[in-house]
Amino acid sequence: MEPTASEYISSLKDDVAIFYPVVQINIAHAIMLAERGIISADEASAILRALLSLYRGGLSKLDLRPELEDIHMAVEEFVIREIGEDIGGKLHTAKSRNDQVSTAIKLALRQKLLDLEEQLLKLVKALLAQAERNVDTIMPGYTHLQIAEPTTFGHHLLAYCSAFLRDIERVEQAYELTNSCPMGSCAFAGTSFPIDRVRVARLLGFGRVDENTMDAVSSRDFAVQSMGAAAIIMVNLSRLAEEISIWSSVEFSLVEIPDEFASTSSIMPQKKNPVIAEMARAKAARAIGNLAGGLSLLKALPQAYNLDLQELTPMLWDSIEETMNSLKVMEKLITGMKPKKDLMLARAERGFSIATELAASLVKHAGLPFRKAHSIVGRMISLAIEGNRTAKELTLEDLKKASREVIGREITMEQSEFEKALDVENCIASRNVIGAPGPKAIKRQLTALKQKIKTHQQLLRAWRRAVVGSEEKLLKEAEGRVQ
Amino acid sequence: MEPTASEYISSLKDDVAIFYPVVQINIAHAIMLAERGIISADEASAILRALLSLYRGGLSKLDLRPELEDIHMAVEEFVIREIGEDIGGKLHTAKSRNDQVSTAIKLALRQKLLDLEEQLLKLVKALLAQAERNVDTIMPGYTHLQIAEPTTFGHHLLAYCSAFLRDIERVEQAYELTNSCPMGSCAFAGTSFPIDRVRVARLLGFGRVDENTMDAVSSRDFAVQSMGAAAIIMVNLSRLAEEISIWSSVEFSLVEIPDEFASTSSIMPQKKNPVIAEMARAKAARAIGNLAGGLSLLKALPQAYNLDLQELTPMLWDSIEETMNSLKVMEKLITGMKPKKDLMLARAERGFSIATELAASLVKHAGLPFRKAHSIVGRMISLAIEGNRTAKELTLEDLKKASREVIGREITMEQSEFEKALDVENCIASRNVIGAPGPKAIKRQLTALKQKIKTHQQLLRAWRRAVVGSEEKLLKEAEGRVQ
Amino acid sequence: MEPTASEYISSLKDDVAIFYPVVQINIAHAIMLAERGIISADEASAILRALLSLYRGGLSKLDLRPELEDIHMAVEEFVIREIGEDIGGKLHTAKSRNDQVSTAIKLALRQKLLDLEEQLLKLVKALLAQAERNVDTIMPGYTHLQIAEPTTFGHHLLAYCSAFLRDIERVEQAYELTNSCPMGSCAFAGTSFPIDRVRVARLLGFGRVDENTMDAVSSRDFAVQSMGAAAIIMVNLSRLAEEISIWSSVEFSLVEIPDEFASTSSIMPQKKNPVIAEMARAKAARAIGNLAGGLSLLKALPQAYNLDLQELTPMLWDSIEETMNSLKVMEKLITGMKPKKDLMLARAERGFSIATELAASLVKHAGLPFRKAHSIVGRMISLAIEGNRTAKELTLEDLKKASREVIGREITMEQSEFEKALDVENCIASRNVIGAPGPKAIKRQLTALKQKIKTHQQLLRAWRRAVVGSEEKLLKEAEGRVQ
Amino acid sequence: MEPTASEYISSLKDDVAIFYPVVQINIAHAIMLAERGIISADEASAILRALLSLYRGGLSKLDLRPELEDIHMAVEEFVIREIGEDIGGKLHTAKSRNDQVSTAIKLALRQKLLDLEEQLLKLVKALLAQAERNVDTIMPGYTHLQIAEPTTFGHHLLAYCSAFLRDIERVEQAYELTNSCPMGSCAFAGTSFPIDRVRVARLLGFGRVDENTMDAVSSRDFAVQSMGAAAIIMVNLSRLAEEISIWSSVEFSLVEIPDEFASTSSIMPQKKNPVIAEMARAKAARAIGNLAGGLSLLKALPQAYNLDLQELTPMLWDSIEETMNSLKVMEKLITGMKPKKDLMLARAERGFSIATELAASLVKHAGLPFRKAHSIVGRMISLAIEGNRTAKELTLEDLKKASREVIGREITMEQSEFEKALDVENCIASRNVIGAPGPKAIKRQLTALKQKIKTHQQLLRAWRRAVVGSEEKLLKEAEGRVQ
Repeated sequence: MEPTASEYISSLKDDVAIFYPVVQINIAHAIMLAERGIISADEASAILRALLSLYRGGLSKLDLRPELEDIHMAVEEFVIREIGEDIGGKLHTAKSRNDQVSTAIKLALRQKLLDLEEQLLKLVKALLAQAERNVDTIMPGYTHLQIAEPTTFGHHLLAYCSAFLRDIERVEQAYELTNSCPMGSCAFAGTSFPIDRVRVARLLGFGRVDENTMDAVSSRDFAVQSMGAAAIIMVNLSRLAEEISIWSSVEFSLVEIPDEFASTSSIMPQKKNPVIAEMARAKAARAIGNLAGGLSLLKALPQAYNLDLQELTPMLWDSIEETMNSLKVMEKLITGMKPKKDLMLARAERGFSIATELAASLVKHAGLPFRKAHSIVGRMISLAIEGNRTAKELTLEDLKKASREVIGREITMEQSEFEKALDVENCIASRNVIGAPGPKAIKRQLTALKQKIKTHQQLLRAWRRAVVGSEEKLLKEAEGRVQ
Repeated sequence: MEPTASEYISSLKDDVAIFYPVVQINIAHAIMLAERGIISADEASAILRALLSLYRGGLSKLDLRPELEDIHMAVEEFVIREIGEDIGGKLHTAKSRNDQVSTAIKLALRQKLLDLEEQLLKLVKALLAQAERNVDTIMPGYTHLQIAEPTTFGHHLLAYCSAFLRDIERVEQAYELTNSCPMGSCAFAGTSFPIDRVRVARLLGFGRVDENTMDAVSSRDFAVQSMGAAAIIMVNLSRLAEEISIWSSVEFSLVEIPDEFASTSSIMPQKKNPVIAEMARAKAARAIGNLAGGLSLLKALPQAYNLDLQELTPMLWDSIEETMNSLKVMEKLITGMKPKKDLMLARAERGFSIATELAASLVKHAGLPFRKAHSIVGRMISLAIEGNRTAKELTLEDLKKASREVIGREITMEQSEFEKALDVENCIASRNVIGAPGPKAIKRQLTALKQKIKTHQQLLRAWRRAVVGSEEKLLKEAEGRVQ
Repeated sequence: MEPTASEYISSLKDDVAIFYPVVQINIAHAIMLAERGIISADEASAILRALLSLYRGGLSKLDLRPELEDIHMAVEEFVIREIGEDIGGKLHTAKSRNDQVSTAIKLALRQKLLDLEEQLLKLVKALLAQAERNVDTIMPGYTHLQIAEPTTFGHHLLAYCSAFLRDIERVEQAYELTNSCPMGSCAFAGTSFPIDRVRVARLLGFGRVDENTMDAVSSRDFAVQSMGAAAIIMVNLSRLAEEISIWSSVEFSLVEIPDEFASTSSIMPQKKNPVIAEMARAKAARAIGNLAGGLSLLKALPQAYNLDLQELTPMLWDSIEETMNSLKVMEKLITGMKPKKDLMLARAERGFSIATELAASLVKHAGLPFRKAHSIVGRMISLAIEGNRTAKELTLEDLKKASREVIGREITMEQSEFEKALDVENCIASRNVIGAPGPKAIKRQLTALKQKIKTHQQLLRAWRRAVVGSEEKLLKEAEGRVQ
Repeated sequence: MEPTASEYISSLKDDVAIFYPVVQINIAHAIMLAERGIISADEASAILRALLSLYRGGLSKLDLRPELEDIHMAVEEFVIREIGEDIGGKLHTAKSRNDQVSTAIKLALRQKLLDLEEQLLKLVKALLAQAERNVDTIMPGYTHLQIAEPTTFGHHLLAYCSAFLRDIERVEQAYELTNSCPMGSCAFAGTSFPIDRVRVARLLGFGRVDENTMDAVSSRDFAVQSMGAAAIIMVNLSRLAEEISIWSSVEFSLVEIPDEFASTSSIMPQKKNPVIAEMARAKAARAIGNLAGGLSLLKALPQAYNLDLQELTPMLWDSIEETMNSLKVMEKLITGMKPKKDLMLARAERGFSIATELAASLVKHAGLPFRKAHSIVGRMISLAIEGNRTAKELTLEDLKKASREVIGREITMEQSEFEKALDVENCIASRNVIGAPGPKAIKRQLTALKQKIKTHQQLLRAWRRAVVGSEEKLLKEAEGRVQ
């Protein structure tokens, strides 16, 4: 092939990510070939010895010269170089590059999805720990970036815990659809050799065989599903990043980013640029782009294998890795971030954030329909603004005046009830509906979230054990066959 | 508000899709308010009577004039018009547009996801039925759009069955993350009214409460997950569509599209344009665009509600509806599509598609390593091409000559074995590895696929029952409270 | 065709947008056919009479029943119904739906691009007018959403003028590549009738003929280029929208959005939600999605016409129309927006935004290298912060102390120079480098921007005249041929 | 900064692409500083000597250790290391990383856009040369992948010439909007130093100054415009790639891909996989993804600089480079591609591709309205198909029979005319409308295309000269100032 052409289609650079999976697949395949009598025990011994030495020696043992198209050729070439073509040439019996590359991507992705879940769990725990330290840190809650009602910093952070826990579920969902084994599909039509696909799948720790052989080699929906999960994670993360960027502005001044996660300049020591958050926000765009690109790549591809598929893999790894990197550094930032409690409280108190609670009080204590209570409170706030007063300075007189104007009769309530209704701390204390920022509700959330984390951790640990266990068994099995 | 501004932000046009969900939510909320004593039994009776009349009368009972911002206002206005503000104004107690819109989208989407799953199951069954009629219809299998090995039309179609079954799993996964109830979150910080979120969730047939109230109103990852599932469905469908387009070209002539699913012109009666397949291919691009747009919309949005979220919903409905439409018409096309069996077989026989099988024979019968068998067969094919002969016209002499040239010694095999190795029907018959096109393997696949279909159908039926059941119970409950 | 299938591929709903272009094309084509003697003068008279009556009567004259595939069929059917098939059937001589649809889209898009340019010019003028009113309204300038240096509100808004002027250039660029005529390409291979493509192009006011007939019917790069231009416009607009959202938060309080462009609630009269800005931000995502979808749709489409192309058009119109709507409402919002000048100045003064200017003074007056001046100022600010002082309260003592600490020797400067360096107004006054916020620099910018606006307006007017002129001439020409 | 954090935001890896631009910018800036008396001639001499030695020594002279944030710091550090901080520290006077990075990207992109245009011109010339060799190579033309009318291979390839020439225009349009200089904008608010922005722009060969300083540092629409141009190029290329893939299938067999641009296997020497075309198709998806990601990244970014912008640059380079690589290898493939002329002609003759021409003949010679001629021909083809005859075997009897059936009277024409109408070569010969495949029309196209190529080449050459000239002048100017 013409050199620029072969360079253009070479995947060697990207194949590094699947080196170990490719060697494992060859080991599992060779074991199965021997078990089924397709190669002899002696041949298997020689082949496995070569493969084990490659596995232990690592990538540097391969001669990755540019004219080799991919790592599959490089591994086969290594084996043949080590033990000769007469035996080494038998390794590729009853398999093809098509099933091998699909299996290798799944093996590598399986690992990465578990790592991703683990990192997501760490982030959730960092958020939860920060939230737990701030269950009573009152802050303003916003809609349309306008102060709307008071909440707590803890409650706000737990919103993200909930979102990232759904992300964990999506990663698990992607894992389940990834964890099936294409090996034995060969080019796409199987083989007449009496191979055992179930055995190879088990040796590689897969949950099941990817049955239809054409589908097994040419489908990559598992990959774009994972890219989709990564994009949603990053979008959720970008929302948190945006908030951190806004919160750390001088104007909002709600949180302090730890120095080692902000950039500063010698000239403006007071200026702490939230560059980590900005970068995380930007990486979300990259994940979105990869996903759009990946889906567009797969669109309208006929069966079975086309080289287009090769170009999907670097986009997949990029999405997963950038997501991992972003989660790691944001986890640390979250842990070190410090709320400015006084300012948070002060801002929540200003801005008439208790309006809704006050209206609720009127409904409860004066039996007004909601919409009318709404209007009266609105009028009261107007009165306060006109008089340049804060929410705390509202009086029962205001209530009376406003109710006269709005509904034509005077409404009043007990002074103590009225004062309670104007107090943000009391407002928070009264919000104990499931999921709300009140102390009981938060306690319930914390318990539920911790339970969820535990459940996911157990599942993750079980999956990890299965993966690691199968790898160890595979190597032991291989060693046992080397004479 | 300035008229162009209010038109610019109005969602009324798109809200039509959530009319029934919005009414149901109001009904459930009113029942709960009464149960919790927040409104009286009499008030509940009046409110529910109005809501039930709206539910039965349908959308036309609402006055959807442009200055109303959305359907939530229109429904509340209807109730107040019917029963007066004193009572009607109480309906909105302890809820907000934020939790209501999020709940309504989830209710509507839940329904649409079930419809989507049902339609996917129909498509899978249509593919499976067509496959079952063609388990022994031999056709060429392609890689890189080049004939590579023989397969069967049945096997080829089952590849798509497998892919769409994964799509069904993805729809179910999206359903599970959609099926939780935001109601009671109010603006984002809950309420101090003693509402019962669990009760409302049950009345609306949700699997659980969407706990954190801020997350509940401002998260839309469930929506982009569904859009992602739709995009992957459409990408899978576009691959089938592309193949149908190619197969129905005069040059390939592998299938006949039914007349009523092709466009023709009076001048060229023989020309059947695969316009349905082309449109399905194009709709895949639309689904990809919606997904990229949706994720981009959510990127970097701060908590809690921002109006940006409103713009996501039409993209969501568009993705789901275009996917539904595409699946429906493609299901019919698949059912009516006719393979041209003779041409399929003829093309499979030409093109040396048995090369791999012949090499396998050499490995089995002459004990050659795979790579050498590979080279010998390559040489044989070259001899045939030079002599302008087909694969069937290869002889043992060719084998001897080729093996002498390639490995320096003569290889031979029994004439009957040799002939078997050249025969595509025999090739197919020998491919009985799990998932392959051989008859036993296909039988196994059919059984497994039917079992999977059944399992999904049972789950779907159970989910449908839960949804329909809760709707019926909700109405009955409401009627029971109307005096 | 099966009804769901014909509905699936029908473009009638979307074709409404090209009704007038389609009639114009038919008129131009009929005139040319007559001129070339392909139809007789009498036939042309009858055909043109029918077409003119349709043009004047409007869309409602067409029978758009669902089984008609598209508007091209409907128009031809109308003509045949009016004047019989013997003559009416000649209208379609030497043309095809393929060249007609491509021409119609270009005609409609041409118009819309001019409208878009006009609206962009309006927005630029609104920004410029607002800027002109605020050339000396000092505000903090931000990097990383952190106050960095002072600037003026005028300067800030002129940044957007510059960006939108580039958008205008991109719209003009798209116009230039759109303004060529496919008519006469027929299906894709031209015709043997002696038609005159140049004449039709002129009658339709096109700048030139779209030469290669295959390219002319199957290319849509002009459409995705326009969608790309729209996406970039919307991205620029979304940046402004984001800033308006941030500026109008209580915390920033830099601008006041006019009431009629914000949403408020009766309960919180002080809360003005910047919903227009949020919607504009969201529409940017939609434009991005349309573009990604459109490009994905075109990817890998073979020549010549495929039905996929039909699906591109609604995405194109959506992008253009949403952009138009967004620009219109944002133009009005910009015009009505009011800066809070006192707060802007106060914030600029706080936050040590003069740090860079102070360092520049040290370089100028004390001959220090920049990096050292940088460090000394940093130390001074630290001293101020430790002493809880503002920038204005810095003294020459601080300078001396800081310079001793940083470079080991005492630096000083004249008190008056020092004070000037600490003054934000003076800082702005000194920034007269081209493009900077200083008064001379702003004056230069205003002059340059107005000149640019004028140039674009002239070009736009010329293009409009050409389009309108050709339409008028076309109708007059047609009328002249009706006997 | 924490190590994972600083690695997360480091751009060093990607900055390699802008090494030379960054050095050039520093040189130009230092010259201007000296000219304006901001630094002395001696200082300029020292600084320029260091910068010139870095320019000549190349990237390896820099110490790119990870804790340096970017290449701008590395270059400044190098200068300070070489000549000490007292003088070296003055280089950064009156500039900032913000204007420098924006200028560097524009300088690098400017170069790459010219390279891209040059490569596009090469591809157009390769297509044109291949077309010129095949002006009379008749092939079937397709719509909906169905044979519709005959055309020539030359005509078909010229369709792509036209498309890629528009791509060249788009690259030039992007160039024009890129070719303006941000230097002197400093952080975003200019400077009070009396710098000369026009001089720096000229020294760097820019067409003009990027005026508004805030816009100049924070706008990247020039970058996404270039990414958009690249995406459209790739989409056009993917269409050609798709056709090459289809044409080289055994079933179509219309072209032969040169061996050195196809992958083969030892076992199937006859199978030539069009992997280059597949890869080009896939790279189009990547360019689409980058564009969607890039736009999404810029969406809703406030002024002025945010670190998000940094993440755009690698996507930009990726789009441009992958486009370059794809164009290069496809140019070679096009040049080496061989049409299978006999098969092309045979396929064009089969498939009744002359139907439209025959109908045109009936219109011309029998005065029928088009739609009726259409129906008669349709009937004739049905008769031929029923009788298993080809188009060439149609007779005047068929015409008579069909016309009787369709319009109730017998139509006939002269035998010679009839035969001409059935002959594909005659059909092509008669298609001489502008842009059609007839010989005169093709000659006209070739002339026009060559003229366009020439015009673009002249412009490109002028631009190149300006760029190279300014670089040479810059270095000479710098050398002249080194004492």
